[in-house]
Amino acid sequence: MAEHSLEEVLHPRSIAVVGASDEGRGSQFFGALVEFGFKGILYPVNPKYSEVMKIKAYPTVKDIPDPVDFVISAAPAPQVPQIMRDCAQKGVKGIHLFTARFSETGREDAIELEKEILRIAKEGGVRIIGPNCLGVYYPKMGMAFQPQFPKESGSIALASQSGQASGEIINKTTQRGAYFNKAVSYGNAIDFNECDFLEHFGDDPEIKIVMMYIEGLKNGSRFFSILREVTKTKPVVIIKGGRGQAGTRATASHTASLAGATEVWNTMISQSGAVSVSSIDELVDVAISFHYLPPITGRRAGVAAGAGGATVLAADQCEEAGLDVAPLPQEIREELRSQGVQIWDWISNPADFSINMGDENFGPAELLKMMAMHPDFDLIIASINIPGWGGPPGSRGRRGGGGPPMRGMPPWAMLSLTPEGIVKQYSQINDYKPVLGLISDRSPSPDVDDREQEDERWKTVCEVTAELVKQGIPFYPTVSRAASAANKVIDYYQRRER
Amino acid sequence: MAEHSLEEVLHPRSIAVVGASDEGRGSQFFGALVEFGFKGILYPVNPKYSEVMKIKAYPTVKDIPDPVDFVISAAPAPQVPQIMRDCAQKGVKGIHLFTARFSETGREDAIELEKEILRIAKEGGVRIIGPNCLGVYYPKMGMAFQPQFPKESGSIALASQSGQASGEIINKTTQRGAYFNKAVSYGNAIDFNECDFLEHFGDDPEIKIVMMYIEGLKNGSRFFSILREVTKTKPVVIIKGGRGQAGTRATASHTASLAGATEVWNTMISQSGAVSVSSIDELVDVAISFHYLPPITGRRAGVAAGAGGATVLAADQCEEAGLDVAPLPQEIREELRSQGVQIWDWISNPADFSINMGDENFGPAELLKMMAMHPDFDLIIASINIPGWGGPPGSRGRRGGGGPPMRGMPPWAMLSLTPEGIVKQYSQINDYKPVLGLISDRSPSPDVDDREQEDERWKTVCEVTAELVKQGIPFYPTVSRAASAANKVIDYYQRRER
Repeated sequence: MAEHSLEEVLHPRSIAVVGASDEGRGSQFFGALVEFGFKGILYPVNPKYSEVMKIKAYPTVKDIPDPVDFVISAAPAPQVPQIMRDCAQKGVKGIHLFTARFSETGREDAIELEKEILRIAKEGGVRIIGPNCLGVYYPKMGMAFQPQFPKESGSIALASQSGQASGEIINKTTQRGAYFNKAVSYGNAIDFNECDFLEHFGDDPEIKIVMMYIEGLKNGSRFFSILREVTKTKPVVIIKGGRGQAGTRATASHTASLAGATEVWNTMISQSGAVSVSSIDELVDVAISFHYLPPITGRRAGVAAGAGGATVLAADQCEEAGLDVAPLPQEIREELRSQGVQIWDWISNPADFSINMGDENFGPAELLKMMAMHPDFDLIIASINIPGWGGPPGSRGRRGGGGPPMRGMPPWAMLSLTPEGIVKQYSQINDYKPVLGLISDRSPSPDVDDREQEDERWKTVCEVTAELVKQGIPFYPTVSRAASAANKVIDYYQRRER
Repeated sequence: MAEHSLEEVLHPRSIAVVGASDEGRGSQFFGALVEFGFKGILYPVNPKYSEVMKIKAYPTVKDIPDPVDFVISAAPAPQVPQIMRDCAQKGVKGIHLFTARFSETGREDAIELEKEILRIAKEGGVRIIGPNCLGVYYPKMGMAFQPQFPKESGSIALASQSGQASGEIINKTTQRGAYFNKAVSYGNAIDFNECDFLEHFGDDPEIKIVMMYIEGLKNGSRFFSILREVTKTKPVVIIKGGRGQAGTRATASHTASLAGATEVWNTMISQSGAVSVSSIDELVDVAISFHYLPPITGRRAGVAAGAGGATVLAADQCEEAGLDVAPLPQEIREELRSQGVQIWDWISNPADFSINMGDENFGPAELLKMMAMHPDFDLIIASINIPGWGGPPGSRGRRGGGGPPMRGMPPWAMLSLTPEGIVKQYSQINDYKPVLGLISDRSPSPDVDDREQEDERWKTVCEVTAELVKQGIPFYPTVSRAASAANKVIDYYQRRER
């Protein structure tokens, strides 16, 4: 009997959920499929109920009269061998085992139980995702493990050994306007492993960008060989969990993975042409950068990130991230002089936001546009003014404050004073060169009076963000994060060009 | 005639503000002094008005009948020499020159003008803060350059060459519950410079922590000699603006500073016993850590930062920051077994939040308290659950979601389910060892439906934060930032102990 492929397993015509219930833990997986409107047939399996969420329930998988392609099981570990035998008998192609407490406990009996489950599965032709994982999020198919995930489909794929990480990655990525084709949380990986997922993502023409969270490799040489192939056509961004001593201990008890030496890992990843990152935030920053930005191969950045000290630090942080913050070309200076801009010889790159104070008709947005149009620049990193955040003295905004009239605009200071104006200026820059927007995250404020004003401003921030996303302009919370993500994107495309 | 000291200049009995007006730019400095209720006498100076903010105005400083100790001037550069002569004649002790466009423009005439101003000041015995800066924030004296700054006084001092940076630093620090004794934005530093401010802060017994933003030193050897002295008794945390090529160009046009080589700088700072940081956020993290934490000299951290992947990455990030994430001591394991905790042999450090799922009476908060009580741990880094953020499946929280019942709690997952419970558990830990709290910042959400739910949750986050601040427990947005700040605090105290 030929093994079912991952492609087959991920396209079931019917799904049975063992342990499904209307409420409590048993409701999550079944409820998510109902909420997502799974395209095929759904079967709740639970001997306690005749129906779940108004759909007829069956005591066991074997009792379902029609064919079942895929099973999701959250049953306790000791029940899994019998479920697996039922699945084999029923001709089920694949099972997602949410169930945990197997080899990751380090206990002999649990390790044996996991082995037994794999043996039954192999003999019965049932493929396994997991155990100890959240399974499949595939919005186009109507499959999800969280009812609250976005229903939009996109071109990103994720394979994650950690369920928690998969949820965090999906939320943080979609929040920045980039959506998933599919994401799989695969846990202990006793059958399908990192190699299968990566190969599948590499072959799928709908997938443009691959994200991975890996604690340990099941098959290192196969993985790196697939990785080298996939990175020739699509960026693969990888975070390794378990880099140090304590992290390695933690991976053992998390997914029973043996984390390897970090140095070896980094070398292998970099030689394979993949992008290595070290936090979930960085993973998301880099993936959304690949999503929004065209294939940039030059590092010359035009930068505007506030006034005074913020300008100086933006320059430092861009350079430390690997970008070139080149001096303003002589042609632009001459152009400024001929336009009658008073402080033409003082204006520079990064653009200091105080420049628009001496001259009504000339501000940072105009300068950024000139940089974007000039061949000496490859990309623009620019902050945004949110009305009421900072702004002129006398404005009530404390959080964004510290701003004096001339030199102290906050880091998100003024490109324009209306949300529409901000978005318009961004897209004018974006017409010529890729632009990375800067919008600060919001820190919790222990000051209650202050909070109410902040809530109003935050609404505007969110509106601007939503519009930028529509315009295809990515945003980042800090200069460092924008610059570092851009630099990794450039690294990838430069390597691919060679 | 003996020079007026910085101590004298910072304690004026009267202040005149040149260019004061009821509205517009001229209102900022005068309005801030009125708002802060400056303890001495205030004189608006403006030939256009007979009174400003209902206080009698004078055409020039010379026209004021009574003595004037301090002057703030925002007059255009060409008017400054005459103002300076007036001040000299009036016996003014010090002047803050907000006025910019001097040597930082790089123009010969502006450089000459700056020199002339200094010459008049020296001859007339008037000391200068600036030019090109925001001046003094000294809440206890009722002095401020932003009316929106907090009026609370504290034990932190700041000297910053950048006005923008000073505003950002003051806002971000006070937002985390730590307040300033005084802060000075000092710009081009043609008279009082970094050495004077540092020396003054070192001598002032009310100041416990010093923060500095420096672009270039006016007197390197004197500065490092003072720095070595001050760091013997108080931590000094320094950020250097202008570390790379572009940043160095930017410092020249910002405060006419010549930034030195970064390597030399880092070596000098570290040999002086000061703490070097590379972003404003890090500067604030480290300063508030010194504010809240006792003198810790050990690096052994007990950590709990979520479940699954978040646990693994927390371990990595703590180790990469320089902390030791030691294995759980055998005594604690034995204690867990004797208490009948089912998964006693699986529980580890970092604590995985799924531990409280197998056992109703035992959760991460209990484990953290055991770690805090054990002599093998020096500090605790722990996340917080905000009710409704994440939590059990079926909760409506999407942003905090991705959380499955067992393994996918978000990074801020559950220590307890009520804000009061969270704060109580934190302070129980804090009774035994210093604890660093984790509360994520909020990212802008382009999803409108989602936003309304989030607003409710955000209120709870802010309430918890306010309570933690009252209890003297610092909070950080990420594990990396908490761990890195803690490590720099430990470095400082270890060095001081030797």
